[in-house]
Amino acid sequence: MPVNPIYLPELREMLAENNVEEMREFCAAIHPVRAAEFMDGLEPLQIWTIISQTDLQTRVEIFKYLDEEVQADIMESAPREEIAEFISHLPSDDRVDTLQAVEEDVVDELMPLINAEDRRDIQRLTAFPEGSCGSEMTTDYIRLRENMTVSEALNEIAKFSEVTETVYYLYVVDEFDHLTGLVSAKQLLKNVGRPNLLISSLMKRDLVTVDAYESREEAARQVVRYDFLAIPVVDESHRLLGIITFDDIMDVVQDEATEDAYLQAAISPMEEPYLEVPFWTMWKNRFFWLACLFITQLATFSAMAHYEDSMKALTVLALFVPLVLSTGGNSGSQASTLITRALALDEVRISDVLRIVKHELLMGLVLGFGLGIIGFLRAYLTPESMIGEADRILLSITICMTVAAICLCGTMIGALLPLAFKKAGVDPGIASGPFVATVVDVCGIVIFFSFVTAWLL
Amino acid sequence: MPVNPIYLPELREMLAENNVEEMREFCAAIHPVRAAEFMDGLEPLQIWTIISQTDLQTRVEIFKYLDEEVQADIMESAPREEIAEFISHLPSDDRVDTLQAVEEDVVDELMPLINAEDRRDIQRLTAFPEGSCGSEMTTDYIRLRENMTVSEALNEIAKFSEVTETVYYLYVVDEFDHLTGLVSAKQLLKNVGRPNLLISSLMKRDLVTVDAYESREEAARQVVRYDFLAIPVVDESHRLLGIITFDDIMDVVQDEATEDAYLQAAISPMEEPYLEVPFWTMWKNRFFWLACLFITQLATFSAMAHYEDSMKALTVLALFVPLVLSTGGNSGSQASTLITRALALDEVRISDVLRIVKHELLMGLVLGFGLGIIGFLRAYLTPESMIGEADRILLSITICMTVAAICLCGTMIGALLPLAFKKAGVDPGIASGPFVATVVDVCGIVIFFSFVTAWLL
Repeated sequence: MPVNPIYLPELREMLAENNVEEMREFCAAIHPVRAAEFMDGLEPLQIWTIISQTDLQTRVEIFKYLDEEVQADIMESAPREEIAEFISHLPSDDRVDTLQAVEEDVVDELMPLINAEDRRDIQRLTAFPEGSCGSEMTTDYIRLRENMTVSEALNEIAKFSEVTETVYYLYVVDEFDHLTGLVSAKQLLKNVGRPNLLISSLMKRDLVTVDAYESREEAARQVVRYDFLAIPVVDESHRLLGIITFDDIMDVVQDEATEDAYLQAAISPMEEPYLEVPFWTMWKNRFFWLACLFITQLATFSAMAHYEDSMKALTVLALFVPLVLSTGGNSGSQASTLITRALALDEVRISDVLRIVKHELLMGLVLGFGLGIIGFLRAYLTPESMIGEADRILLSITICMTVAAICLCGTMIGALLPLAFKKAGVDPGIASGPFVATVVDVCGIVIFFSFVTAWLL
Repeated sequence: MPVNPIYLPELREMLAENNVEEMREFCAAIHPVRAAEFMDGLEPLQIWTIISQTDLQTRVEIFKYLDEEVQADIMESAPREEIAEFISHLPSDDRVDTLQAVEEDVVDELMPLINAEDRRDIQRLTAFPEGSCGSEMTTDYIRLRENMTVSEALNEIAKFSEVTETVYYLYVVDEFDHLTGLVSAKQLLKNVGRPNLLISSLMKRDLVTVDAYESREEAARQVVRYDFLAIPVVDESHRLLGIITFDDIMDVVQDEATEDAYLQAAISPMEEPYLEVPFWTMWKNRFFWLACLFITQLATFSAMAHYEDSMKALTVLALFVPLVLSTGGNSGSQASTLITRALALDEVRISDVLRIVKHELLMGLVLGFGLGIIGFLRAYLTPESMIGEADRILLSITICMTVAAICLCGTMIGALLPLAFKKAGVDPGIASGPFVATVVDVCGIVIFFSFVTAWLL
């Protein structure tokens, strides 16, 4: 997010004058998201000074929206005791995310200062693998028992509303923490007039849950599919471990989209925004793939070398190489993206392979002949100085057939590679446009010169 | 979503026996999302018969999750009066979406049967351009007045909870419908014990809103940024027109991601899932771009023709063409994706152009020389039969420099094209990998043969 310099001079003045009253007003007057943005550009300790003036809840809210890096800087530089106390008030999922960005020796100093219950909570959450539902969930939610009444449930909301992530879904558990049901705030609000109604008579029992070790994408898929506000995370014996709320899900959906876009262009995923990724990290994530592609592409040299004599005999052939190869790359890139996206959205499964093959076979043929006709026309317009009249028609037909065949080949490889990767348990996104294009290029050279040798020379 | 055949035989049996009781139980027992999925495969009228047995609210819920095509089929084939009455109970945004898929003459027959208020509402919503906030919003939400009390607000919730899209955000308007504030259900729940508290003392006044004619992506950006459950849509004089809820926002985020992925691979966006797009629609959306790219790529033929003599003099040069060209395409595709995605996420703006140029210039150079070294090694290994000893070193240096220059060129074009498109008011996604690759190919040929002519021949 670009720096917003409007408030910075005022904020610096408040800090210089230690104007506690104005700092408090600044935090209270505008939305926490904007307060966090406006302070972008101040030193971490200056930010901490400003937000320390406001009430704990607002402080937590503003802190949540600071850049992860700034959060970590504050945790590293502000007095340990203050931070340890503050950490206890952060939502359980946020504090784990932040602590993972803090230097390890600082974490080691902070941990003993955090109260035992929160410390255990942090340790439990950090234990889940990155990208799992367990690593994404919060443990701040409201639990009810089946034998509670509506009025008791309302009391729970009033008691915990400041520390819970959502008051809109309340989870019903038994004495062993097994998840047995869900009551929405909507149902409670509808029954405000019946305070003695039992939760067991209101709650929904047929719940969609995710396992703590499942991927967070799976949670996102379910939440988007069912329009949930949150989804419960359970262990193998259906004990409730935490919940993932819709705002975190929206971030997951957006992160996944970015990751998929990067993969599609052969870039290793990066978590930070474009301008904040360190230069050499970005270099590594781009060079790795470029080098892989370049080395794979070396095969085209050998393939071309194999047909050197054909090119010596008819130099005009070389002029068509970039044209016919790009056709394979473009059609392959289209097909691989369509299939990768359809797999990501659960629109197709590996078992649909036959339908997909049939569809893309037909599509590749129709697309190929369309392009082939354009290729035919271009080849037919080759200047007479380059090729004789009789050869020209043969050349044009060869180009037409080559373009059609390469387009079909690109389409099929583009459609099948993501399915093959998925089947092999690899992210189908690896079958990116550039990757498919590189694979298809070698095929393209072989197809082109085979046709040329057969019909033209 | 693939057809789920588990329940189909049972459902067909219920229909054959007209077993109303079992149909009602089927609708009530499972989640509406799953009920809708299980009926996938039945005739539209059979689905209508089954859901007609259950209560109105469940019927609406199940209907909402049917495929849009099935919804339209039901509206076209079920008795007009039944449908007209049912339409009044659909959420206002959903019914507009569905009606847009229904044949026009059926809509003309239905409209007079719909009650006047809902008809006006439908006409008003359909008037907003597709993709605008106005077209995405619902008019089913709860309005409060500033002088209402907490207990009156709770009564409103109880009264409207079945017909409103959300009970969690309640909007405060004045007598002219100007939006003045927002009260969350959380605040009401916290104050259940103070029934006479005025809404004006609870409500938040500093609200983030979107204009009805703004793009729905803008609404999505704000909701994701602020973690809202819904965002109010207003007209130019800040009158409240409707709200967009988080579940629709999640769909927008996912649709946009799909659209971006398609554009990135040079495919025109399609709304239906991969296997449901009609063959010729998909052909059109793919062929258009392939043909554009193919015709643009024809320029490589002319560029190559310009250097025909060089190739006649040294055929080995032609062997390097696919290799050096792919380098430009791959590096360009990386850069264009990074910038397009960063623009979409608001991480960079057009005004950052200088920072981006500096960053990518340096990156292109470093990446280019890395690849250049690999290129040098490959060229140095060219068999002696193809090129003499003295020329080989020169050739290797030329390839190294060419690869570096083309990589830099691809990176710069890839980074600048999305910014130029954005500046021109065109979707930066048009600067897709294949598009950039095609543009860079021509530059690549010129760079390659210029270097060759200068140093080698």
